[in-house]
Amino acid sequence: MPYYIGRVVDDAKPLVARSPEAFRKQGIDARIFHRVDEIDIQKRMVKVEDLKSGRSAWETFDQLMIATGAIPIRPMVPGLDARGVYELTTLQSGLEIRRAIDEAQPKKVVIIGGGYIGLEMAENLVRRGLKVSLIEKTAQVMNTLDADMAAPLADILLAAGVQLYLEESLVGFEVVQGTIREVNTDKRALPADFVLIGLGVRPNSSLAAQAGIPVGETGGIKIDNRMQTEIAGIWSAGNCAESFHRVSQRPFFLALGTVANKQGRVAGINIAGGQATFPGVVGTAMVKVFDWEVARTGLQEKELKQLGFSYVSAKIESQTRARYYPGTGQIIVKILAEKGSGRLLGGQIVGKEGAGKRIDVLATALQSGMTVEDVINLDLGYSPPFSPVWDPVAIAARQVANLV
Amino acid sequence: MPYYIGRVVDDAKPLVARSPEAFRKQGIDARIFHRVDEIDIQKRMVKVEDLKSGRSAWETFDQLMIATGAIPIRPMVPGLDARGVYELTTLQSGLEIRRAIDEAQPKKVVIIGGGYIGLEMAENLVRRGLKVSLIEKTAQVMNTLDADMAAPLADILLAAGVQLYLEESLVGFEVVQGTIREVNTDKRALPADFVLIGLGVRPNSSLAAQAGIPVGETGGIKIDNRMQTEIAGIWSAGNCAESFHRVSQRPFFLALGTVANKQGRVAGINIAGGQATFPGVVGTAMVKVFDWEVARTGLQEKELKQLGFSYVSAKIESQTRARYYPGTGQIIVKILAEKGSGRLLGGQIVGKEGAGKRIDVLATALQSGMTVEDVINLDLGYSPPFSPVWDPVAIAARQVANLV
Repeated sequence: MPYYIGRVVDDAKPLVARSPEAFRKQGIDARIFHRVDEIDIQKRMVKVEDLKSGRSAWETFDQLMIATGAIPIRPMVPGLDARGVYELTTLQSGLEIRRAIDEAQPKKVVIIGGGYIGLEMAENLVRRGLKVSLIEKTAQVMNTLDADMAAPLADILLAAGVQLYLEESLVGFEVVQGTIREVNTDKRALPADFVLIGLGVRPNSSLAAQAGIPVGETGGIKIDNRMQTEIAGIWSAGNCAESFHRVSQRPFFLALGTVANKQGRVAGINIAGGQATFPGVVGTAMVKVFDWEVARTGLQEKELKQLGFSYVSAKIESQTRARYYPGTGQIIVKILAEKGSGRLLGGQIVGKEGAGKRIDVLATALQSGMTVEDVINLDLGYSPPFSPVWDPVAIAARQVANLV
Repeated sequence: MPYYIGRVVDDAKPLVARSPEAFRKQGIDARIFHRVDEIDIQKRMVKVEDLKSGRSAWETFDQLMIATGAIPIRPMVPGLDARGVYELTTLQSGLEIRRAIDEAQPKKVVIIGGGYIGLEMAENLVRRGLKVSLIEKTAQVMNTLDADMAAPLADILLAAGVQLYLEESLVGFEVVQGTIREVNTDKRALPADFVLIGLGVRPNSSLAAQAGIPVGETGGIKIDNRMQTEIAGIWSAGNCAESFHRVSQRPFFLALGTVANKQGRVAGINIAGGQATFPGVVGTAMVKVFDWEVARTGLQEKELKQLGFSYVSAKIESQTRARYYPGTGQIIVKILAEKGSGRLLGGQIVGKEGAGKRIDVLATALQSGMTVEDVINLDLGYSPPFSPVWDPVAIAARQVANLV
């Protein structure tokens, strides 16, 4: 959706993975504009409301799959419903935001939140020619990166003309005649005719919780590795459910489409009588920030400290291609490893074209519990147009291996 | 060197990883234009010839490292020393080839051999405006790919204007007054004023073999996982030595700089009294062919048959980015897995920008002995500018998992 809003992607149609009609052709009765308001786990029934007619009816089920996704985290301030204040959540909200920009032609945008959506929207709103300010209450953007890896992103945003206000909290909106006029932080007032809230999401698990289906410490529906909830025959997957983090060996909430897709596949196989298990996630995520690629996997320093890991880390700067090959670009790789054992614990990458997807090597290595010595000796692809002889990921592994 | 010859890389200096002077500054007496003609493993001495003065002398050693690299495979035909006939082997040969093209301005090039060097040279000589013909004695270029994955490369070469003669063998050169005039195959005569031979390399292990240092079935010097030969205190690494293939669990010869670098690091650590082991390779290699990226890892069908594996394979076509994201390109991924166990055995990729380095996921998965089911559930990086939600590698794994 950020790229649709930025007109990088022109047409919204390809953004719909599958239409209700496509489902119907496969014999699946996909009902849009229908909401389940209640689940009766004893009677094996759901209460379904047709949002167009307003009528409700109880329907029975043999197996129930709960895939209610995530809901946006909203700031606790009045004025969220003012004209010009938007959240990017559903496809519908994305269509509305682009239409609003096309029609109202706002000039001054304030983005609240420096996470993935905030950064993608900053890039795409700058692309639309808008003056963008970004407010983030912590000391860095992209809190899933360590501070030292997030620091270059602040420079990238500033260089692109984004006004960045770190360590500032939203305190309220100044609304005049139903229209946003100003965003107030604890430090200043920012004139705004367009506000985008991107504070992240939480699992939309209240329907399940109200029905007595156990919800975990992360707020997501508890599921086993077959995606079954603690109630037999009731399943869940995706952004309303928990994941299992293979590095921390704890429940984890990661609201990403990749995880949702893989969990959904496993749930579907099992509901249909097959046998599949989902081994959990390692916390991989990627984002493009202007012409930089940002990626992370595993645990970051903050998490390692919380979990009591004894760890070492190394950060290296290298090139995406052979240093003499045209188009080579900067890449920074940070790797975290367990002190003593050398077990790989996490990795973070910031770099130019070709940098980001290198995170997959570390994600795959984490999945199989490799040490950093194992990573050094991986047989990674080399040719001058694609990599230095020592891939930057292996260079970082060499550095951190010296500290283990 | 192909990119230097194609003037993609202007300057040859950055191609030298480290100069003799740089070594000397680190206290290493690096003598160029010196050749070791004999090793006496009993007396722990080497006979060194100074190629400039012609003088030889025996010198003692405590530890000996043999890093004699590879030597080109030469066709058994007369005329190899004719003007206009080149092999791309050393840095020096690359400098000569570029100078020859600049000065003699040849028009009609014949490349003999459709491997990595042949393909890279085809691209770079077309870039220099030359009319290029390529002769390959087998039915496909890139014999490290399966035939079905090599087929698109033939189309790519033809589209780029390269005349491709498959299943044709070199029988001789027509040399007039010391200059190449024609290349004769078993099927035709091709006029040529420039010939490049790229028939691959073999381990340059004869010096070691003559000294009684055991050489393996691959022709490379036998080494253990610490890079020590069967003679204590004599070590080897790189293209003169064998590797161990982790998938076939057999000795393997892979003449690539990546392997040489990693083996060299391990040898160095051990010679200096440390402890390091090299786990072996999985056969990863990459090449750029015009605007296509080609990569492979693990075992290919031919090898699997030879080794008696029972295997299944699947080939999928997908996109390098989200299908709606600008700049997305075609990617073909083939994955091979063991029938029954589902163990990943190999993978091959042909595709546009961003396709090739995805081989690293499969290389890493092979290194840790993953099944294709494991590959499906890898937590790979996703964002629309970089990948579809299901990475093409995972899509291929899904397909092959259905056949296991």
